[in-house]
Amino acid sequence: MSLITQMAIQARQAAAQLRAASAESRTAALNLMAQKLIECREAVLAANAADLADAAAMPAAFKKRLTVDDKVFDYMVSRLQKAAQLPDPVGKVLEERLMPSGLEVRKVSVPIGVIAMIYEARPNVTTDAASVAIKSGNAVILKGGSESLRTNLVLAQAMRSAAAAAGLPEDAVQFINTADRAAVNELLKLDEYIDLVIPRGGKSLIKAIAEGTRIPVLKHYDGICHLYVASDADCRMAVELVINSKCQNNAVCNALETLLIDAALPVGSVQAIAEALREKSVEIRGCSEFRKIVPDCTAALDSDWDTEYLGNILSIRIVRNIAEAIQHIAEHGSGHTDGIITSSKLLADEFIANVDSASVLVNASTRLSGGGDYGMGAVVGISTDRLHARGPVGPDELCTYKWVAVGNGQLRK
Amino acid sequence: MSLITQMAIQARQAAAQLRAASAESRTAALNLMAQKLIECREAVLAANAADLADAAAMPAAFKKRLTVDDKVFDYMVSRLQKAAQLPDPVGKVLEERLMPSGLEVRKVSVPIGVIAMIYEARPNVTTDAASVAIKSGNAVILKGGSESLRTNLVLAQAMRSAAAAAGLPEDAVQFINTADRAAVNELLKLDEYIDLVIPRGGKSLIKAIAEGTRIPVLKHYDGICHLYVASDADCRMAVELVINSKCQNNAVCNALETLLIDAALPVGSVQAIAEALREKSVEIRGCSEFRKIVPDCTAALDSDWDTEYLGNILSIRIVRNIAEAIQHIAEHGSGHTDGIITSSKLLADEFIANVDSASVLVNASTRLSGGGDYGMGAVVGISTDRLHARGPVGPDELCTYKWVAVGNGQLRK
Repeated sequence: MSLITQMAIQARQAAAQLRAASAESRTAALNLMAQKLIECREAVLAANAADLADAAAMPAAFKKRLTVDDKVFDYMVSRLQKAAQLPDPVGKVLEERLMPSGLEVRKVSVPIGVIAMIYEARPNVTTDAASVAIKSGNAVILKGGSESLRTNLVLAQAMRSAAAAAGLPEDAVQFINTADRAAVNELLKLDEYIDLVIPRGGKSLIKAIAEGTRIPVLKHYDGICHLYVASDADCRMAVELVINSKCQNNAVCNALETLLIDAALPVGSVQAIAEALREKSVEIRGCSEFRKIVPDCTAALDSDWDTEYLGNILSIRIVRNIAEAIQHIAEHGSGHTDGIITSSKLLADEFIANVDSASVLVNASTRLSGGGDYGMGAVVGISTDRLHARGPVGPDELCTYKWVAVGNGQLRK
Repeated sequence: MSLITQMAIQARQAAAQLRAASAESRTAALNLMAQKLIECREAVLAANAADLADAAAMPAAFKKRLTVDDKVFDYMVSRLQKAAQLPDPVGKVLEERLMPSGLEVRKVSVPIGVIAMIYEARPNVTTDAASVAIKSGNAVILKGGSESLRTNLVLAQAMRSAAAAAGLPEDAVQFINTADRAAVNELLKLDEYIDLVIPRGGKSLIKAIAEGTRIPVLKHYDGICHLYVASDADCRMAVELVINSKCQNNAVCNALETLLIDAALPVGSVQAIAEALREKSVEIRGCSEFRKIVPDCTAALDSDWDTEYLGNILSIRIVRNIAEAIQHIAEHGSGHTDGIITSSKLLADEFIANVDSASVLVNASTRLSGGGDYGMGAVVGISTDRLHARGPVGPDELCTYKWVAVGNGQLRK
């Protein structure tokens, strides 16, 4: 039996134990995970320095994601501590009714089982995924990017020893300690033992994984996020929200990619937005209507409306009204995060009712769509799937449910 | 463009309209569906007689499933009426919180979108699926068994005209009017327009569909359902529950297939169960321990523990204790429906905590696991998947959710 199959079987056994584990022991494990992480701070930083040394030739953005400095380290610890404090997601009675027959029927949240997490460079995914999995009573198999192998190994070992110290199976958290891609391919064949795969990375990677396995995959595709500035939008709020949505961090999935401006928005507001973007050196790709107001910008191509730049570029289109904005988002959006800026509750409600995205925002930065700002604590990603989990994937989303029916001899008539 | 692609595009357009439709108009549609169905009673019965005439050479069980007699017809009408009365599944606020930033965050149930339903002979699936879909604001494309084509066509037309009469798009319900299997293959390629496929039928059909499409599939596999009779089980209740679970209808997925009897159950109770089964002419396939008590029965083979008979056969195994029962169910069960018969709350709780099935029952017939007996009204099936929906699939399960966040200019820090 291969090492990977062995890990999957161990994960399945750990999941059976976790299913019956108490909330107290899972919470204790999370607190111990934070404590063990603090204890191995030096080892983490040293391993990360070694990983970074090997990655010297990689692009700066990549190295930034790979880096665990003091700030990232403290963030990882705080996420573990926060996860411990969140309400228990397991055993929640989601529905309950007493049937006329006397049968007591309950819908109760339970762990999914075994989750495989496949991700790239960021080492904080290792601790985040371990914490979200343990919080929700799942066993997790982690496969991180090969460039962060040393860092992840130290982190995963700390998570495992914390689980064991809390009386949970050590194999609740397992880490695939190889850079070999073949390990992933093997993992994806083990639908007998693994209940869910969560890939994090580029679209092509996720697509390849989803098409190459019978295991359900929770997909995290791109965010072509929109803001629609209605004609009645407050100019200052519009400028602030556009700049924050585009520039706070342009390399992430909830960054703004296309701005839709109502044709009736005062020209002064349009110019103020353009001016603020220019100050941030954002490259604007405008439609022909927009370029009549702001001539010195690139002309948008059709392909711009379907592009996730993940960079300092913004496409801007003037739309006739809210209906055209909703239509544009339906055609070109990716269902991730889309928002409206307006002073009208009526327009806001129309936008909410008709925009079918995982997150629909009113007068807020697109950068706020996510676990932390929604009060969910650590999450393992933001799902663009429609089924099971949509948007941020935290402990609640790593649960499923079962029906429990208690009777006293009820028969089917 | 092919007819099937056209239908899928029409369904997508209908889904966009349904998303913004009021609960009142969807309820009105359901009541009109019942009314239109009553109005076309003669046409339904005549079409069904013609279908049945063509199916004269088919097995009796098949013809029974195909038949719409007065009883089935009234049942179909009552399910539509009941669906109208159920609480609205759309727009439910599933979670709500006000963040310290002032951002109001809500998790709200919304329709999934476009659902393709692929099923076999039973014509009541046509009205059930239409009602569950409309109730939950989804557009549905129906592909029924070719033998029930005439009946389904009349039914689907009634459902469509009811939708139109309620001001909803007629294409909220579409019916593929062909016996051609190629239509299904084409449908399964349209992941751009279809959000979910629900196949109902044999395991091989479902498997072929799940493996041949990129669209998410809600699978309805077999039910290898167990009852475990604990040593303290009331003898009379055990006899009644075993007989009802096995014999009330043995051709369905929640019928009992394997009985696990605790070794400490009094011999008299074991014999009473065997006697009652014999009176119902059930073929018993027993393990060697069981055959020491009841010698005149077939010896169970290893394969019996993994078999869904869907017939008048029951495998019986003596287990040493509840742990062995739980272990047997984990190894051989299909995660559909499993129950315990006991007078001990402690044993019941241990069974509930450790048996990981969609339905876990205490002192109740396995035949009670389903939409009606759980108070869910019409359902389109009983999912054996772990993700999104587990167990009965009704209007709530055909919804997903979105996050709505309303602010007043909140930025990401």
